[in-house]
Amino acid sequence: MKLAEIGEFGFIERFKPWFGGLVQGEQMGIGDDCAIIPSNEMEDWLVTTDMLMEDIHFLYGTILPEQLGFKSLAVSLSDIAAMGGTPVGSFLSIAIPMDVEVEYLDRFMQGYHRLSEKYNTPLLGGDTTRSLKHLAINVCVIGKCPKGKARKRNMAQVGDIICVTGNLGDSAGGLQVLIDKFPLTEENNYLLLKHYLPEPQLKEGAFLANRDEVHAMMDISDGIASDLRHILKASGVAAQIQLEQLPVSKQLIALANNHKLNATELAVGGGEDYELLITVAKENIETIQEQFLAEFGKPLIQIGTITIGTPEIIWYKNDNQGQLSKKGFNHFQ
Amino acid sequence: MKLAEIGEFGFIERFKPWFGGLVQGEQMGIGDDCAIIPSNEMEDWLVTTDMLMEDIHFLYGTILPEQLGFKSLAVSLSDIAAMGGTPVGSFLSIAIPMDVEVEYLDRFMQGYHRLSEKYNTPLLGGDTTRSLKHLAINVCVIGKCPKGKARKRNMAQVGDIICVTGNLGDSAGGLQVLIDKFPLTEENNYLLLKHYLPEPQLKEGAFLANRDEVHAMMDISDGIASDLRHILKASGVAAQIQLEQLPVSKQLIALANNHKLNATELAVGGGEDYELLITVAKENIETIQEQFLAEFGKPLIQIGTITIGTPEIIWYKNDNQGQLSKKGFNHFQ
Repeated sequence: MKLAEIGEFGFIERFKPWFGGLVQGEQMGIGDDCAIIPSNEMEDWLVTTDMLMEDIHFLYGTILPEQLGFKSLAVSLSDIAAMGGTPVGSFLSIAIPMDVEVEYLDRFMQGYHRLSEKYNTPLLGGDTTRSLKHLAINVCVIGKCPKGKARKRNMAQVGDIICVTGNLGDSAGGLQVLIDKFPLTEENNYLLLKHYLPEPQLKEGAFLANRDEVHAMMDISDGIASDLRHILKASGVAAQIQLEQLPVSKQLIALANNHKLNATELAVGGGEDYELLITVAKENIETIQEQFLAEFGKPLIQIGTITIGTPEIIWYKNDNQGQLSKKGFNHFQ
Repeated sequence: MKLAEIGEFGFIERFKPWFGGLVQGEQMGIGDDCAIIPSNEMEDWLVTTDMLMEDIHFLYGTILPEQLGFKSLAVSLSDIAAMGGTPVGSFLSIAIPMDVEVEYLDRFMQGYHRLSEKYNTPLLGGDTTRSLKHLAINVCVIGKCPKGKARKRNMAQVGDIICVTGNLGDSAGGLQVLIDKFPLTEENNYLLLKHYLPEPQLKEGAFLANRDEVHAMMDISDGIASDLRHILKASGVAAQIQLEQLPVSKQLIALANNHKLNATELAVGGGEDYELLITVAKENIETIQEQFLAEFGKPLIQIGTITIGTPEIIWYKNDNQGQLSKKGFNHFQ
């Protein structure tokens, strides 16, 4: 049997139970954006790790080394943000083909350092080794959060309002520009940069986790169609999403118009936006939205509701129900 | 300029200073077996990460998947041992070519689990992804140790006795068996297993770190010729090593005799033994050795002395001084 038949999550399910008995006390292991390890009476520790492989996650010639360094750290910082944590330090492992120039590596580290400095996150260690052919990068980030306050995927409650912290689909649009070699107009370049330099929502995540009315939280790495299902499964609830409420940039709409793409489908199915996906108690949503706007100068956008039911998403478009297939949306009545 | 011209450590030196200003308080970052992060009033945290690449660190067809899973975790647990710590949890990232069978991965995880269970170390998270061609594995281990008690490379003092916890060169001998396809005699198989299934010296490390008379400590991953130099540089001292005192197994001696190899050179230059290398206050060495023998049923072996001088190793063989070149030892007078 090949891995493709059972997928990443199928593989994880095979060995996850073996380790359950070793997990101690209030530790939380496999299954959320970060693991949680109690540290002291005030704080919990958060740990996350992400691997980026050349020709799978990035193409050597198309992403600048500074961007690759930045993005390698950004995706793990985003996991810390998704739990409401603050980063403490990072660990970088990098396997390098022998023909890579030192100048390339210097520029990679400059991008990595730029983001490290922005979020005050020292590189505390790592491993440097050879690779026969492909660059392989692994980043592990340690973070912390107030004790018991980490936001998990299993915290969504029926009636909660589902919100996101920013535009969806821009990164998927940027990837499309890359793959189809669309002209580098100002708009397309905007999307490309969203793909290459995602901004971890660390301040937003810590702000939201500080409000008891904010329940489940995660980051959008695979697209909300996939990511929201993790929240639904973990919380044992269903969701209704209003497609016309999904925030999309004017740049993504321009791309869609110019190249006969569907902006909504890019917003729903595209990954790597690294915005936060949260569920908020209905009675507090307006207050939270006002506070969020005042703090960050950008809206917290409602896109749907948590409902009773089996862990599935029901998609609506202007109050008509529809279905999402592999080919996109269809059957809107 | 290619990476080969400056090497791994040359590369690290280029960016290490950029991050120094971000390291906070009592944190210790790049440069030892583990990073140290203060956790609470009783404990410090230790973090280490190691990457294993197919065709660089292992050959797919020659190591059993159970052994690869075991070894992937063992090398990082050994770093925790080297600081005198106890493991808390591990994080496994694995990039998998699409033609790898699920059965192979199950067996890999069985080996990983076997060692996890032995040292009560839960797998708390990770990342699973595709790879185009080569298997890439990264393991990050979090550990803990009593506050301020982690043993570092900069703690060696002039007059200290240098000791190791077990035989040297077995892993290098095993690698030689593999490369030269020597017959799988009982002795050669012993060496192969030492190469494939290194035992992290966790109990020994915690025991030694609990004695104030034990100063510097690290694990032997690159061979003592290379590893001891890290202690010397960090501590600003020199060392004398008595080559005839290096502990070598009878299996390694048999291999050397049968195939015209030099057991001493394998013991000095070969890596991946994952025994501990320590320096102990001279006046306490006999007590520590007696306690170690009583606790573990094996000797703590003296191999040399820390001396005043520039950070270099002076090699002795039966009181004659010699030099180590790339071709091995020569010029013993």
